[in-house]
Amino acid sequence: MLPRFGLPVLCLAALIPALAAAAPEREFPSEEGMLSVRTLAEGLKHPWALAFLPDGKGMLVTERPGNLRLISSEGQVGPPISGVPQVWATGQGGLLDVALSPTFKIDRLVYLSFAEGGGEGGTAGTAVGRGQLSADLAHLDDFKVIFRQLPKLSNGYHFGSRLVFDRDGYLFIALGENNDRLSAQDLDKLQGKVVRILPDGQVPKDNPFVGRKDARAQIWSFGHRNQQGAALNPWTGEIWTHEHGPRGGDEINIPKPGKNYGWPLATHGIDYSLMPIPETQGKHVDGMVDPHYVWEKSPAISGMAFYDNPRFNAWQHNLFIGALAAQSLIRLKLEGDAIVHEERLLGPLNARIRDVRQGPDGYLYLLTDAEDGALLKVGLEP
Amino acid sequence: MLPRFGLPVLCLAALIPALAAAAPEREFPSEEGMLSVRTLAEGLKHPWALAFLPDGKGMLVTERPGNLRLISSEGQVGPPISGVPQVWATGQGGLLDVALSPTFKIDRLVYLSFAEGGGEGGTAGTAVGRGQLSADLAHLDDFKVIFRQLPKLSNGYHFGSRLVFDRDGYLFIALGENNDRLSAQDLDKLQGKVVRILPDGQVPKDNPFVGRKDARAQIWSFGHRNQQGAALNPWTGEIWTHEHGPRGGDEINIPKPGKNYGWPLATHGIDYSLMPIPETQGKHVDGMVDPHYVWEKSPAISGMAFYDNPRFNAWQHNLFIGALAAQSLIRLKLEGDAIVHEERLLGPLNARIRDVRQGPDGYLYLLTDAEDGALLKVGLEP
Repeated sequence: MLPRFGLPVLCLAALIPALAAAAPEREFPSEEGMLSVRTLAEGLKHPWALAFLPDGKGMLVTERPGNLRLISSEGQVGPPISGVPQVWATGQGGLLDVALSPTFKIDRLVYLSFAEGGGEGGTAGTAVGRGQLSADLAHLDDFKVIFRQLPKLSNGYHFGSRLVFDRDGYLFIALGENNDRLSAQDLDKLQGKVVRILPDGQVPKDNPFVGRKDARAQIWSFGHRNQQGAALNPWTGEIWTHEHGPRGGDEINIPKPGKNYGWPLATHGIDYSLMPIPETQGKHVDGMVDPHYVWEKSPAISGMAFYDNPRFNAWQHNLFIGALAAQSLIRLKLEGDAIVHEERLLGPLNARIRDVRQGPDGYLYLLTDAEDGALLKVGLEP
Repeated sequence: MLPRFGLPVLCLAALIPALAAAAPEREFPSEEGMLSVRTLAEGLKHPWALAFLPDGKGMLVTERPGNLRLISSEGQVGPPISGVPQVWATGQGGLLDVALSPTFKIDRLVYLSFAEGGGEGGTAGTAVGRGQLSADLAHLDDFKVIFRQLPKLSNGYHFGSRLVFDRDGYLFIALGENNDRLSAQDLDKLQGKVVRILPDGQVPKDNPFVGRKDARAQIWSFGHRNQQGAALNPWTGEIWTHEHGPRGGDEINIPKPGKNYGWPLATHGIDYSLMPIPETQGKHVDGMVDPHYVWEKSPAISGMAFYDNPRFNAWQHNLFIGALAAQSLIRLKLEGDAIVHEERLLGPLNARIRDVRQGPDGYLYLLTDAEDGALLKVGLEP
């Protein structure tokens, strides 16, 4: 004989997967209206970056320990995709950014940035490579490294990094300085640089330091600290980057060829110990470019997305940036290139936000940095 | 002793090149304001197409007899660029369209369409190839044919053709039916088709007729007559094409994969002799796609440009098309994809307009079809 409440209990159990798929929606107030936040996926290990596949096939998500996974638009998390390179998963190192080739539909190339070991004395550096995603989305074939940050100087700190293609098809890589401050000013090292290469890793002939013996030809701009954000401004076609300051001095820059963005000679920040940075001469140094926008108190920024989708008109011409220490999503209102207003969103979530992207459906997609990290889908209520 | 008026005469002579450079500006009324028209260059032999080089380096212009020339932004006409293929310059045949690779800055590839001889009984067909433009802009290197319209069926008529890349990097080729009407319905022939290929000429695996034995895999859509216009709609990312009807029935289409656009079974036109087209069943035939827009009286359209530059706001969201027989520039006002208004411009010029493009400076650039053809720059007076 069946227990008295057997049938209702069975019914509830059958409903659980459906409930998980239609995850609970939370609401948070904002200046532009009520935000709706849906948790699409959980249990991601320090997820770092996401890239949308075309044709509604979902997105590729990196986890810092070294896995690349397919997550469907509904949030179903796939097994690790094979063919991903061995990464140096120590400290801030591991599998970092992911970007699709601008002609992904034709070449199916997926670009990854990651920390790679093998440096002197056990050090590591950032590397970038590409492989071809198989038709069944299960493996990356023929993965090849096309860029290495040399020398390798990191003991676990400041690998950057973000990958972004400009409209002409050049690949920009925003790098960290491996916590080796003065290397950011050394043109013979690839630390603390924005780099510009061809999709196969070759050096464009019109890079600013081509032909100089004392400089590496991949360099586009220098004097950067730890860059974890880069995006193409859809209204101007320019690449924007941002970087962590030390204590204070997180910056947004619009890197121009051959220019010096100051670190560590010019910064608004001080050392974590509250002492001045030994090499710093001031907030402004002649011949170096001031930040386009600066935070005196560091939110610890990561990921960035320009919003240009017609779905939520109130967000048009806004720039969204994740914040780790500040545990919020930063909304910056733009007028032309000028940032005229800042708002901090989603504070009550208490989540370290590692990446933010605009989805093809016009929603914002966030990754939270945690041992049990989540993929969030954020919209504005009507 | 100098003749009495020697000095003034010499001064005038010295001024002539300057006068030619600052060509006289003519004005023509239009619904959106006064049009200014400047003749940038003259003496072009049946110019057919133009493509702007990046960085203000001017434009590449084809002349139907077989020359490709660099014309500077100020209108200085360069000598023929070497390395262009031999063309079949008979009737409507010759050197036709020109397009730059979407990653031209990286690969310097220039694509050309042209009539190519070698068919049975002295016939010709359209071909497409690409070569690398040298740094000094003087020659095309390593030109290779990547597409051939087979079989070759033209005695001098209806080669099309226009080349356009979509946002994913696929190359679309809008073709004519070589005046062989029923070939437009024959999937085993490349006449009267829109074709979609990879930049190196290979066939994308998701083309609609891949794997069908009775069809050529390059075909995207069919049932077209003589297409001399194709452009990427910048607001939707879709490819738009247009085609000449016979007497009546010029059409704009938004070709979808695998669809039949009707020629010669469905058309609004009749024969030049005023008799019905023998194969025509009517203006609409079930299973075939009606034109997106149709002219009952043929302007004989060629070239097309969507206007999305902020320079002349009154032209925003308009589509411009050249007209040969109607000797005018056609302006079509769009609301979404719908064409809600038509205006004919520049009638008093009495010029056959072969091509129209939006320049990087926001002006419209036109080519007039004549033995002594011109390059015109058209703007709106403030």
